[in-house]
Amino acid sequence: MQQVEICFSPELIHLHELQGKLVVVVDIFRATSTMVAALANGISEIKTCADLEECRAMASSGYLIAGERNGIKAEGFQLGNSPLAYLSGEHQSQKLAMTTTNGTLAISKSAGADEILIGSFPNLQATVSYIQSRDKDVLIHCAGWKGKFNLEDSLYAGALVKALERTHEAEDDGAIAMKSLYEKEGHNLKGFLSQASHAKRLQNHNIDSDIDFCLTLDLFSLVGKVENGILTGIKL
Amino acid sequence: MQQVEICFSPELIHLHELQGKLVVVVDIFRATSTMVAALANGISEIKTCADLEECRAMASSGYLIAGERNGIKAEGFQLGNSPLAYLSGEHQSQKLAMTTTNGTLAISKSAGADEILIGSFPNLQATVSYIQSRDKDVLIHCAGWKGKFNLEDSLYAGALVKALERTHEAEDDGAIAMKSLYEKEGHNLKGFLSQASHAKRLQNHNIDSDIDFCLTLDLFSLVGKVENGILTGIKL
Repeated sequence: MQQVEICFSPELIHLHELQGKLVVVVDIFRATSTMVAALANGISEIKTCADLEECRAMASSGYLIAGERNGIKAEGFQLGNSPLAYLSGEHQSQKLAMTTTNGTLAISKSAGADEILIGSFPNLQATVSYIQSRDKDVLIHCAGWKGKFNLEDSLYAGALVKALERTHEAEDDGAIAMKSLYEKEGHNLKGFLSQASHAKRLQNHNIDSDIDFCLTLDLFSLVGKVENGILTGIKL
Repeated sequence: MQQVEICFSPELIHLHELQGKLVVVVDIFRATSTMVAALANGISEIKTCADLEECRAMASSGYLIAGERNGIKAEGFQLGNSPLAYLSGEHQSQKLAMTTTNGTLAISKSAGADEILIGSFPNLQATVSYIQSRDKDVLIHCAGWKGKFNLEDSLYAGALVKALERTHEAEDDGAIAMKSLYEKEGHNLKGFLSQASHAKRLQNHNIDSDIDFCLTLDLFSLVGKVENGILTGIKL
């Protein structure tokens, strides 16, 4: 058996060994869900940027630019952080530069891992299949919310621990806890998450359909993988 | 309604507002359980120390000294961190100086709160009654394990959120998650926790009876309260 562990916040990642591990970065509402939607709908690659300025500068290199701060599209950007914007396929073969509040930080702080994937509910099973084709311990790195534990990322982590139980043992207390919580609440994700602080924030922005998308399982047979700061899709 | 939130690790406490709040520090295996056992069995006050040297020095001021590192009694100390050592009442009216791996850190990092209590399963209901006699928001500060989320502290936090639901609303995602997890696993705490990393470590030290004690509800009608670094018991 390999092992699987959870880091609930980028602020705790220094407590985890990254070397040799396959890290799955997760920011369910909405960065990693949007990345997976974009890659599955024709975007050829995504560059994740540390801040809005770095991202804005990519426009002159032919990138579409997507920027969000605190859940709202940033001024001067072509796209925000809604996964639905990509589903039409109109951005076929374009490159995307993207920055988000928490997700980009979690990716950059995963540097040093053997492999870095991007996780979301819409490609959960594809991610499981990919992981099970490798022979590595897994660290699920939740982007959280401003450094804190958040419910949607943690429940995804629990779903992934559960889905990996044939090959990966829950190594730490976080993995044990979230697997159990997903077993209890997984049948009613949206109802349970509607209590969450972040879901309430999103409701304020009228993006209920984004939430539905982000909580839908297995729409895409695609894995998102980061190499040298560039995210691409691997079709399974 | 007042509010209740959870901080899963002293490494995340800077993300929480302490001012005006009632903080409950919890280190179930075994610091805060032992503190409550000691106060309920005659120890008049407990001084929590940042390190073994500070604690050792208290012996010359007439304190009993209790010190533990990584689950084992430290060399030269009269007591370790077992709650059972106090149940005989043989230390009646003595003062105790105590240091532990994670618990002392969580107490010192709670400075700035309006009130600081010490939580344990053996005095859960007393702590609930005390809190409900105040009119304050509650922050449950889990000592964790070397900075990480741990299962026993988090489940206690969930039990406390659940017990407070008449007067305190779960304010953050951690409180929502742990309340739900306690609802699922609370009837079988020991079985569920036997999977936890810390419980496995404790089993290696042959302290199964300590674990039983630490998971027993409502043995004592006593609240542990820290003021100016000194912990005393309030009998209800």
